[in-house]
Amino acid sequence: MDTSELDSTIGELGERAALAIGLEPLKKGVAASVPTGDDAAVVTVADGRFAITTDTMFQGSDFLTDWSSPEDLGWKAIASNAADVAAMGATPIAFTVAIGLPVTTPVRWLQRFAFGLQEAIDVICPGAEVVGGDLAGSEQIVIAVTATGHLAGRTPVLRSGANPGDVIAMAGTLGKAAAGLSLLRHADRQLIDSYEELVAIQLRPQPPIALGSVAADAGATAMLDVSDGLLLDADRIASSSGVVIRLDAAQLEGYQAVLELAAQSLATPEQARNWVLTGGEDHGLLAAFPASASLPRGFKRIGTVNQVEPGGRPEVQLWRGAQRIVLGLDAAGVHSAGWDSVRRVTPS
Amino acid sequence: MDTSELDSTIGELGERAALAIGLEPLKKGVAASVPTGDDAAVVTVADGRFAITTDTMFQGSDFLTDWSSPEDLGWKAIASNAADVAAMGATPIAFTVAIGLPVTTPVRWLQRFAFGLQEAIDVICPGAEVVGGDLAGSEQIVIAVTATGHLAGRTPVLRSGANPGDVIAMAGTLGKAAAGLSLLRHADRQLIDSYEELVAIQLRPQPPIALGSVAADAGATAMLDVSDGLLLDADRIASSSGVVIRLDAAQLEGYQAVLELAAQSLATPEQARNWVLTGGEDHGLLAAFPASASLPRGFKRIGTVNQVEPGGRPEVQLWRGAQRIVLGLDAAGVHSAGWDSVRRVTPS
Repeated sequence: MDTSELDSTIGELGERAALAIGLEPLKKGVAASVPTGDDAAVVTVADGRFAITTDTMFQGSDFLTDWSSPEDLGWKAIASNAADVAAMGATPIAFTVAIGLPVTTPVRWLQRFAFGLQEAIDVICPGAEVVGGDLAGSEQIVIAVTATGHLAGRTPVLRSGANPGDVIAMAGTLGKAAAGLSLLRHADRQLIDSYEELVAIQLRPQPPIALGSVAADAGATAMLDVSDGLLLDADRIASSSGVVIRLDAAQLEGYQAVLELAAQSLATPEQARNWVLTGGEDHGLLAAFPASASLPRGFKRIGTVNQVEPGGRPEVQLWRGAQRIVLGLDAAGVHSAGWDSVRRVTPS
Repeated sequence: MDTSELDSTIGELGERAALAIGLEPLKKGVAASVPTGDDAAVVTVADGRFAITTDTMFQGSDFLTDWSSPEDLGWKAIASNAADVAAMGATPIAFTVAIGLPVTTPVRWLQRFAFGLQEAIDVICPGAEVVGGDLAGSEQIVIAVTATGHLAGRTPVLRSGANPGDVIAMAGTLGKAAAGLSLLRHADRQLIDSYEELVAIQLRPQPPIALGSVAADAGATAMLDVSDGLLLDADRIASSSGVVIRLDAAQLEGYQAVLELAAQSLATPEQARNWVLTGGEDHGLLAAFPASASLPRGFKRIGTVNQVEPGGRPEVQLWRGAQRIVLGLDAAGVHSAGWDSVRRVTPS
């Protein structure tokens, strides 16, 4: 690669040349019989079904280039979308990536972004590939990814299948991404270095993608990835399934414990609990399993599914032993206690 | 629907409520067994393969809200992506639509956009559906669509399969969208009203989606949709297939004739030819067929595929009878004579 060419802007090169150079880091996967470069790619799914999901990231509201490198953004774009596919019990196979960049962006930026895409694929969903790309000039950086996955004959795991008596379990990190965000906002270089792991999870979340299909095989009755906060996402299962989800504060303490030093360093010790309950972007898997199922390795029990009491409604409750803990949230309740990509309600 | 609710902004409602109200116009299709609302949709493809493509539209560079209504934008988002799927010989089945809107946008806007999505599906690819949506707050309006299609056992039609001796044929409009754009730019209300059909094709292109699979069945050896201009897109087939494509000026006259009055009204009579040769956004289908194939109804012969002469290179040539017409384009040749979504080279 001619180094000077990497310094050319995408506006100077035009879409075709910029994509040809910028997407060089991408490798072929296993499922595409027609790769990117034609009008559409063609992807094979042996059982004749595919899972599909889409998500966008906007500069300013979803990320800042001061915090995230191009590689980080590529990684995060794959991780967040792969988690949605995994949460259906499917294995990610093919991604399309549409990106809008200011025309003054050097093509090197695009290439570094593609390195991040490929690195995430290699680490968290090997065998998958980017099968389609689109590049356009824009004011702010916009990244729109669509992920597809194959179910390999499995019944998709919906949000609506949780049954009273089920166990609620979690795989992956919880609250670390939110802690990392607080640290970045604090902008104290030394503090950021001290809690490198938390910041790394915010910039490059590590969803346990392979555990999605494992959970489905183990009989998971409902599943989603925690992208908007545990309370809000658990509430989605509760509402869809028409059940009450009781989270066990004692079983959440492990997640909280690893965040407490960071919370104290930010002079907000109570924050550790909030990060665990309302912090999004870890993209871990939250699932319900029948009580008789043996939880797959990597899942940790954090609660139970109960029926809605007469006069009650589907909701998420936090209990410590026989004691219900009233959540100190605003009047709108748990619905507002997580991330909303439009309303931008953030954890208090 | 409560009218006042439609006046609420998406920022006031938040993503979930805004999507619930805004996407009401969407209808179920035939291929999704799990529709939108879970982490991912699940779509069935009987032959175990799907075609997938993605494309973005940015306010300012790809459209202006002064010209396009929300319904128009929904229509165009479907039409342009469906054409890419059709150009593989596939039938569109499922779309994901990610949209970024300023948070002050009333949810009514989103609902009108969804009406446009559904109207395009009903008219140009009935049976397909929108299976996933994402809404985020953004500075400019951004629309990112991914389209999938099924091949029903057909071999995908690539850009690289054209053979010397093949016939080049076109289905759909050619140059009308570019003429419509020139009329809109001219901003003369009376002129715009006089050439309503051309403006309508710019705002709501009418690609012959169903002819994609028909062309595949008729033996098409190469195909794409003309999104960036006839010369540039024909050059893509020529380059990928390693052939020379000879376009026949006499056979293009019909396309030119219907644009000549409009060109004269804009005091640029020579423009009609440019619209046909370099105007994009009609999204008609350009295909190569073996000389022995009978062209499907809807396709019109416009040229031939020839081998590259010794010392020559794959390219597009324009001929009138035995006379080659030298294209009056800049030094960069035909490559720069169409639309590039980053470099923004527009027809002269």
